[in-house]
Amino acid sequence: MALAIGVDIGGTKVAGGVVDGAGRVVAETRRPTPNDDAEAALDAVVEVVRELAAGRDVVAVGVAAAGYVSADRTTMLFAPNLPWRNVPVRDHVSASVDVPVIVENDANAAAWAEHRFGAGRGEPDLVCLTVGTGIGGGIVIDGRLYRGRWGIAGEPGHLNVVPDGLPCGCGNRGCLEQYVSGTALTRYAREQAERDPERAARLLDLAGGGEIDGVHVTAAAREGDPLAVSAFDVIGRWLGRGLADLTAVLDPGVYVVGGGVADAGELLLGPARESYVEHLSGVAHRPVAPIRPAALGNDAGVVGAADLARP
Amino acid sequence: MALAIGVDIGGTKVAGGVVDGAGRVVAETRRPTPNDDAEAALDAVVEVVRELAAGRDVVAVGVAAAGYVSADRTTMLFAPNLPWRNVPVRDHVSASVDVPVIVENDANAAAWAEHRFGAGRGEPDLVCLTVGTGIGGGIVIDGRLYRGRWGIAGEPGHLNVVPDGLPCGCGNRGCLEQYVSGTALTRYAREQAERDPERAARLLDLAGGGEIDGVHVTAAAREGDPLAVSAFDVIGRWLGRGLADLTAVLDPGVYVVGGGVADAGELLLGPARESYVEHLSGVAHRPVAPIRPAALGNDAGVVGAADLARP
Amino acid sequence: MALAIGVDIGGTKVAGGVVDGAGRVVAETRRPTPNDDAEAALDAVVEVVRELAAGRDVVAVGVAAAGYVSADRTTMLFAPNLPWRNVPVRDHVSASVDVPVIVENDANAAAWAEHRFGAGRGEPDLVCLTVGTGIGGGIVIDGRLYRGRWGIAGEPGHLNVVPDGLPCGCGNRGCLEQYVSGTALTRYAREQAERDPERAARLLDLAGGGEIDGVHVTAAAREGDPLAVSAFDVIGRWLGRGLADLTAVLDPGVYVVGGGVADAGELLLGPARESYVEHLSGVAHRPVAPIRPAALGNDAGVVGAADLARP
Amino acid sequence: MALAIGVDIGGTKVAGGVVDGAGRVVAETRRPTPNDDAEAALDAVVEVVRELAAGRDVVAVGVAAAGYVSADRTTMLFAPNLPWRNVPVRDHVSASVDVPVIVENDANAAAWAEHRFGAGRGEPDLVCLTVGTGIGGGIVIDGRLYRGRWGIAGEPGHLNVVPDGLPCGCGNRGCLEQYVSGTALTRYAREQAERDPERAARLLDLAGGGEIDGVHVTAAAREGDPLAVSAFDVIGRWLGRGLADLTAVLDPGVYVVGGGVADAGELLLGPARESYVEHLSGVAHRPVAPIRPAALGNDAGVVGAADLARP
Repeated sequence: MALAIGVDIGGTKVAGGVVDGAGRVVAETRRPTPNDDAEAALDAVVEVVRELAAGRDVVAVGVAAAGYVSADRTTMLFAPNLPWRNVPVRDHVSASVDVPVIVENDANAAAWAEHRFGAGRGEPDLVCLTVGTGIGGGIVIDGRLYRGRWGIAGEPGHLNVVPDGLPCGCGNRGCLEQYVSGTALTRYAREQAERDPERAARLLDLAGGGEIDGVHVTAAAREGDPLAVSAFDVIGRWLGRGLADLTAVLDPGVYVVGGGVADAGELLLGPARESYVEHLSGVAHRPVAPIRPAALGNDAGVVGAADLARP
Repeated sequence: MALAIGVDIGGTKVAGGVVDGAGRVVAETRRPTPNDDAEAALDAVVEVVRELAAGRDVVAVGVAAAGYVSADRTTMLFAPNLPWRNVPVRDHVSASVDVPVIVENDANAAAWAEHRFGAGRGEPDLVCLTVGTGIGGGIVIDGRLYRGRWGIAGEPGHLNVVPDGLPCGCGNRGCLEQYVSGTALTRYAREQAERDPERAARLLDLAGGGEIDGVHVTAAAREGDPLAVSAFDVIGRWLGRGLADLTAVLDPGVYVVGGGVADAGELLLGPARESYVEHLSGVAHRPVAPIRPAALGNDAGVVGAADLARP
Repeated sequence: MALAIGVDIGGTKVAGGVVDGAGRVVAETRRPTPNDDAEAALDAVVEVVRELAAGRDVVAVGVAAAGYVSADRTTMLFAPNLPWRNVPVRDHVSASVDVPVIVENDANAAAWAEHRFGAGRGEPDLVCLTVGTGIGGGIVIDGRLYRGRWGIAGEPGHLNVVPDGLPCGCGNRGCLEQYVSGTALTRYAREQAERDPERAARLLDLAGGGEIDGVHVTAAAREGDPLAVSAFDVIGRWLGRGLADLTAVLDPGVYVVGGGVADAGELLLGPARESYVEHLSGVAHRPVAPIRPAALGNDAGVVGAADLARP
Repeated sequence: MALAIGVDIGGTKVAGGVVDGAGRVVAETRRPTPNDDAEAALDAVVEVVRELAAGRDVVAVGVAAAGYVSADRTTMLFAPNLPWRNVPVRDHVSASVDVPVIVENDANAAAWAEHRFGAGRGEPDLVCLTVGTGIGGGIVIDGRLYRGRWGIAGEPGHLNVVPDGLPCGCGNRGCLEQYVSGTALTRYAREQAERDPERAARLLDLAGGGEIDGVHVTAAAREGDPLAVSAFDVIGRWLGRGLADLTAVLDPGVYVVGGGVADAGELLLGPARESYVEHLSGVAHRPVAPIRPAALGNDAGVVGAADLARP
């Protein structure tokens, strides 16, 4: 089947891959992300595309990045990691390749990849959450990616879970991503370490005098450290509440949870499932959509962007 | 254009109408709802259909009722107002008319009607809320009614707005419809009347010695009675929070709000709009979907059911 | 030292004891509580007093019961377990003994006993919580029982912990005792058993076909059953939040927690302590008042009532 | 009656007064607060005391400041506005006057002044809240100032009103002062101005291109500007919830509310009273403590400190 190129512009690197019709990455390359230079970032994307396209017969290019994408998939309206405001990425990249180019939100691309080739394969109604620094989301409905009226649907991280709760960068308070994210995990662990250093002995030890970070919490939780386990328990239980909320609106067939924090696996998903069932509306009279770990890892953005770009 | 029959089975009456291609009701009839008798309720539907079909060339029949409908639109799995559990309504009605028959949730039918002929006309991505005793909801996405994986999507009344809040009939706590509904309106007014009878003088007067009811609150609010106005303010503000939540997930083009409580118009929608804007995620950087009153009133269920039934 | 009589009118029995100056019960008796008969309840108290006073030199009588007591300690204004409304208990009992008689709220009596002879001995500023069906509370300030301006201070069970939360019998919503009490424990266990019977297997087994009750949850939790342990964890964590709230207002020297639910010991107090430290204001810059289990068990009401009655 | 000196060390000025036995300020003076210099701040206090004592027969000196005071009233343990950590203020000031000196928390001093000479005169059980940048509190019980076991009782600003709510400088989340304070008032107004500049036209006009501040909100609210009135309504309603919480614990005879934000009078206290009655536990069966505006204004700290110092 036909090959397509996917490019995923992350906070630290621009990753590109050639993806076949079965979602396999048959070649890949990467560049550091030029975070402060809009032009250089575009150039990096073009370089990645050219390198991958050289000597191959590719039919399309998909570019994914965090941020708002115009409804016609041509323009990056706003990107949190790049100085891109209303940048016509499609036109810029199109100028150097002779195939169709589209732009997509990275969490949407990841959701699409999991739907087509990953943990949500075969399931036409799916919600995918990427839990990293914040929460990214993508919704697949009736086998199609749902973008919303203005291209910004699928932001479950901004569901309000605590009325008048923690302030969020989005301007609202009490958003889910303030309670479920790497940020929330680390904040909880640091707060507890300050309140009760004895209970946090293992975490402080791992941090070696520096600040406690997500990797320390994950490592300690895997060893069974009670405070670290309880940190995942707290954020996992909020995640379950968020999924119960999404279910009331969307009634999807499956949830797929990926991202760096979800690498902790059942430490996060165990409490999430328990809390999800505790908070589902009408649970006794409905099928319960399963919560699955994402299957494609870091490739999801590249694979999804490539596949969405295919005509 | 072709005529279709819509039947809307409510708590007190079975209403039927013949609907033309422009959403106009060209004929109608009704029967009392036989609430306690599953057979009699089916018979009432059939009678309504026969009466309306007689001497007319109708192409389809749609039957709407509160409750869960099977994904293939043939069977009523559960209906709160009727003793129907897994009743094959489609087959039963089909036996007496020679055209296709479908069954649909009543709030879905109303949402569809508002999308096709009412306040959401021309808008492919729409959420419709029917605020009565509880909250019914319907979602239109890309111009199609969205039912969810198991047919029970679109239940915004069961979004959790208060963690560990008021108990809900659905088995969960803190659901939106516990804070926005006729029940919530009346409960608030009664509670305040018990706490501070003086402040509730006008309401108690209207209730004439009986219990304060929704009609008393609406009447007093229209006169400008401060307690009654404040009751609508309280529930309206919760409604705005709920719509902000829905926006984070669905990013629709318009909200349509109908149902008995919404007949109070701006008394409810004014505070809802204010609170909605106060709680929108990323409000400074996104278009704000308008909140409109429903246009079709009590006919929405009949019109929507008929239109959805058309092949 | 002088002997005094204490009488504690509970939901099922009227317990009386002769208490010496060191808080020891040197004699005791009991009667069933005549719950439906105001006169008979008074008679039962008098009988208990007469029996205990016979042949002994007692200097005072204290009568404790759940409910509101007048500020002059003569009258029971309202009692939830008895048909007593504005009953002059002091006068009635005084007629049959020749020593001073006082009436006191039972949780106040228990707090006083713990302050004088129990877990709060030697501590002039103390809060005692009795966690049973609901939460009773007593506050000792500067070595004196604090009753408030109208005699109804010390109701920590009615601190609001969830804005717009679960409805409470007191007419408010979200009161602490809706989240920390035998009622809350049982409700949580039953809800989970309905949602996920498999997870509740041990509890359902102990309930033997009947309703799951507090004793089953405690028994299962002692065996280590995960769901039962998690039920205590949930209510214990709310208790910790409540104690953190009380600390912001009262800054007491110690908390004493008694009552039937607290018999589970560390199953309740462990999570309570953890959550208490997590939610204390200014925790890094203040001494942390310890949380201790009550020491006097069921005798606390009798001992406290007797001691408070001493002139 | 005997004269005493009170000194109130505020964020911008050190105010001193000679106070007679009726609470009248018969002479006063002030210095700028040397915020960054611990020695200079002590010197300023001594200068104020010397100036006021010269040629007068004073019997005592009381010094009030925001912060934690040792239980023996000799030492400032921590002061947010000054670089004082464990400063023996009593000894330092005593060295230059020949009368007893005490140190007291400023909100405690204000509460005492209102109890003795102001809005709470004659009421033995009183809670006073000073709503400024944050919330200060003082509790009078049985006619005595209540300091708590470690001197830090009476911090109603750190009652938790929103579980997992807005972060507070005290290290906790969801504290009352995050929802009721000048900070909260301004934050709400600014947020709304950003979300809906049209609605905030009058406020933006008053701010004249600068940031919207508390004075602008108060001024606009007095003119009836809807957004400004609604800002006071929002914080006033939270205040009412906080007072209902305090009532469950303390059952005081009266609440006195002072501070800069409370200068707005009924704009704040009106919604506070309404919400207070809405959230009181057992409201139908108890007397309702009145909420009164403070009577002594800026003098309260000076008057209370002087009066508390009297032997």
